[in-house]
Amino acid sequence: MDTRVNSADTALRERARRVIPGGLWGHMNADRLPEGYPQYFARGEGCRLTDVDGRSFVDLMCAWGPIILGHCHPVAEAAAREQTARGDCMNGPGPVLVDLAETLVAMIPHAAWCQFGKNGTDATTGCVTIARAGTGRRKVLVARGAYHGAVPWCSPSVAGVTAEDRAHLLHFNYNDVDSIDAAVEAAGGDLAAIVVSAFRHDMGVAQEMPSLAFAWHVRSVCDSTGAALILDDVRAGFRLHLGGSWETLGVRPDLSAFSKAIGNGYALAAVTGREWLRDAATQVFSTGSFWCGAVAMAAAVATLGELRRVDAPAVLLGLGERLREGLAERAAFRRVRISQSGPAAMPTVLFEDDPEWKKGYAFCAEALRHGAYLHPKHNMFLSCAHTEADIDVVLEAADRGFQVVGR
Amino acid sequence: MDTRVNSADTALRERARRVIPGGLWGHMNADRLPEGYPQYFARGEGCRLTDVDGRSFVDLMCAWGPIILGHCHPVAEAAAREQTARGDCMNGPGPVLVDLAETLVAMIPHAAWCQFGKNGTDATTGCVTIARAGTGRRKVLVARGAYHGAVPWCSPSVAGVTAEDRAHLLHFNYNDVDSIDAAVEAAGGDLAAIVVSAFRHDMGVAQEMPSLAFAWHVRSVCDSTGAALILDDVRAGFRLHLGGSWETLGVRPDLSAFSKAIGNGYALAAVTGREWLRDAATQVFSTGSFWCGAVAMAAAVATLGELRRVDAPAVLLGLGERLREGLAERAAFRRVRISQSGPAAMPTVLFEDDPEWKKGYAFCAEALRHGAYLHPKHNMFLSCAHTEADIDVVLEAADRGFQVVGR
Repeated sequence: MDTRVNSADTALRERARRVIPGGLWGHMNADRLPEGYPQYFARGEGCRLTDVDGRSFVDLMCAWGPIILGHCHPVAEAAAREQTARGDCMNGPGPVLVDLAETLVAMIPHAAWCQFGKNGTDATTGCVTIARAGTGRRKVLVARGAYHGAVPWCSPSVAGVTAEDRAHLLHFNYNDVDSIDAAVEAAGGDLAAIVVSAFRHDMGVAQEMPSLAFAWHVRSVCDSTGAALILDDVRAGFRLHLGGSWETLGVRPDLSAFSKAIGNGYALAAVTGREWLRDAATQVFSTGSFWCGAVAMAAAVATLGELRRVDAPAVLLGLGERLREGLAERAAFRRVRISQSGPAAMPTVLFEDDPEWKKGYAFCAEALRHGAYLHPKHNMFLSCAHTEADIDVVLEAADRGFQVVGR
Repeated sequence: MDTRVNSADTALRERARRVIPGGLWGHMNADRLPEGYPQYFARGEGCRLTDVDGRSFVDLMCAWGPIILGHCHPVAEAAAREQTARGDCMNGPGPVLVDLAETLVAMIPHAAWCQFGKNGTDATTGCVTIARAGTGRRKVLVARGAYHGAVPWCSPSVAGVTAEDRAHLLHFNYNDVDSIDAAVEAAGGDLAAIVVSAFRHDMGVAQEMPSLAFAWHVRSVCDSTGAALILDDVRAGFRLHLGGSWETLGVRPDLSAFSKAIGNGYALAAVTGREWLRDAATQVFSTGSFWCGAVAMAAAVATLGELRRVDAPAVLLGLGERLREGLAERAAFRRVRISQSGPAAMPTVLFEDDPEWKKGYAFCAEALRHGAYLHPKHNMFLSCAHTEADIDVVLEAADRGFQVVGR
C-alpha cells in the first residue's frame, strides 16, 4: 500500500519543487531513496525519527552522521540552551571556544592546535590549503572515488567545475601501496599532501578498512617527502576512536578534518594539526560569519564529554556487532546473500548480484514499512541512543525486507 | 588605565594561543583591533554586548553583520527554541525549509528558486559554480579588493593558494564601466559571470555606493553576453532592501548570495536565482552535513517576518542618519576631519590624513572605554534593537574619542 499519495510529505515535496532546484540539493534528496521514504521530518528523539505523516522509525542514518548521542540528546541540548541564553554569534567567541580547543588537543594525540568551521568541506579544504601553505608545494593525492566535500576541487559532480580547479590533484587507489608510489613519483618535488579517508566508504560499494601496510606506507611517504598526511575524519570521527580514527592503527596524521558528530548535530567542523603546521594555519585566511558561534561549541564540549563518559566507540561497536550478527543470521535463514562491510558502528549492507541496488531498494522499502530507516547504498550510522531492543526492532524489520528479496 | 592585565580576557587569550594558531582565525581576531578591545564575550542582549570582564558596550558591529534584530531577539529565539524541541539535524529537512524557500522567493523579485548553505562563502562559491554550469563558460569578473569569502578562489590571503585556483578570474574596478568593458573583452566568448558586491565595502577605505550607470552597465553586459550577474549580498542583504540590495537601483541580478543577517545570527546562507539557472543549480552538487538543519531555518523565517513587520531598512536608515549627523556635528565641534561613507545603516567612519588608521585606533579605543564598540577600518552595522538613546550613548562615547584625536 502506497500511503504517499495525498500525504503531507507529498504536498511539501510538490511545494518545494517550485522553489528549490530538483526539490532538494545534495545527499538528502529523497528522490534518490527507495519508494516510500519520507523527505520531511517532524520530530527526532533518541534513535527515532517521526516523519510529517506521523510514521516513526528507528533511525540508522543519524542525519548521515551528525547524530551520535541521539536526536535531541539532553546533555548536548542543555549545554546549547544555556549558551543560547547568554549569546551565540557575538563580536568574538565565548570562553567555550578555549574549552573546546583544549578538549580536542587533549583528546587527539596528533593535535597541537585546532581551528573551527561549519562544514566538513570547510575542514577538508582548510587542511589542503594549510598543507600547501606549510610545504610551499601544490600537488595533493586523493583516492579515486573518495568523497571529501562538495566544492569544485572535490565535488563528485563536474557541473560548473573547471579543469584548473583540480589541476594539482593526483589519484591513487585506497589500500594500494603501488598506486601511492606512482602518484608520489608523478608529483615529483611538488607533493604537498596525501588525503585519506578514515576507511574506504565510497557510496554504493563495499567499505574497506585501511590495511596496516597502507596506513604505515602513506605515513612513511609523507615523512620522507615532507608532505602532510591529511586524515579526512569528517564521516567517521568519534565513532571508531575518540583520538581520531587512525589511532586504531597507530598511525597519526599531520592534519585531520572533523565535523559531523562533533556537536551531535550542531553545525561545527574542526581542523586539528601538528606543531609544524601551526604557522601555515596562521597564514591561511580562513573564516566565516558564524565560526565563532558559541552555541555549537558548547554543544560540542558537552557531546565530547558524554562520548568519553559512555565510551562511545565501545558502545557503538557492541550495538553494531549485534546488528551485524542478527542481519547475517536472518539473511541466511531467508537464503539471501548479503555483504556487510566497514566498521560495525558504520555498517554498509549490500546484496550479492545487485549491481543496480534493486534488491537493496526493495529490502529498504520493506524495512521502512516495518519501522526501520536503513540505506540501500550508503554506510549507516549507529548512535549511543540505540538500545539492544532498538536493534532488535531493526532486525525484525530487516527480516521482512529479506523475505521480500528472497521471493 | 589598562584594565586588561590579569583580566579574564587576557587569561583566555593566553590559553587560546597555545591551542589555536595565532590565537584566533580570521576576521574576529582582536589582535587586529585597538588596545583594550576584548576578544571574548560573556553575553549579548539587544544592542549590547558584555565581555568576560563584565564591561558592557553598545555594539555597532552586530557580530560583523549577522545580528540585525538584536542579540538574543525574542522572536527569532522563540522560533528556534520551538524547532529545537522537535529536532534540528534529521535525515532530511523539516517543513520549515519550504516555508523559508517560499518566503525568500516571494520577497526577492529576481528569485525563482533558492538553495541553502551555512557560510557566506558557501553561497558565493555556489553562485560562481552555478553560473559556470549554466553558461558552460569559465571566466568570472570580480572587483579588485572586493571580499567574496575565505577559500582559495577568493581569499584575501594567498597562503596555500595556487595560481590555478584563480586562473579564470578577471578583475575590474568597482563603479568603473571602462574597466568592466576591458575585462569582458579579455574574457572573450568565455564569460560566465560578473560578481558585484552590493556596494564597495572594502576594508580600510571609504565605502562607495554603486552608480546607476555602473549597475545598469553590468546588467546590460550580462544580458548581451549571456553571462550571469551575481550579486554578493552576504554583507548587506536585508539591511538596505528586503528584496535584495540592488532593488534600490532597479537592477536585478541573475544570482544572489545571502548569509549573515538572514537568521539573526543562526548559521545560514542562501543562493537565490532566476529561472534560467534552475537546471544548472540542480546539476551542481552542493551539500553539507548541516544544510538541512531546521532550527536555523525556523530562526530565518521568524527573522524575515520581523524585518518586514518593522520595516527594518527604514528603521536602520533612521538610526544610521541620526548617528551620521551626530558624528558629523561632534567631529566638527572638536575640529576633527572625518569621512563617513556607505549606507547609513552600514557606516564606515575614517579620519582624514590617517593612512595607517592611527587616529581611527585612538578614537575607537577611547570610545570603547566610554561604552561604544566601534570599528576603525571596517564598516559597522546597526540593528533594529538600537534605540535613539543607544545612538546617543555612542555619540557621547565618540565625542570622547574625537577629543583624544583632536589633541
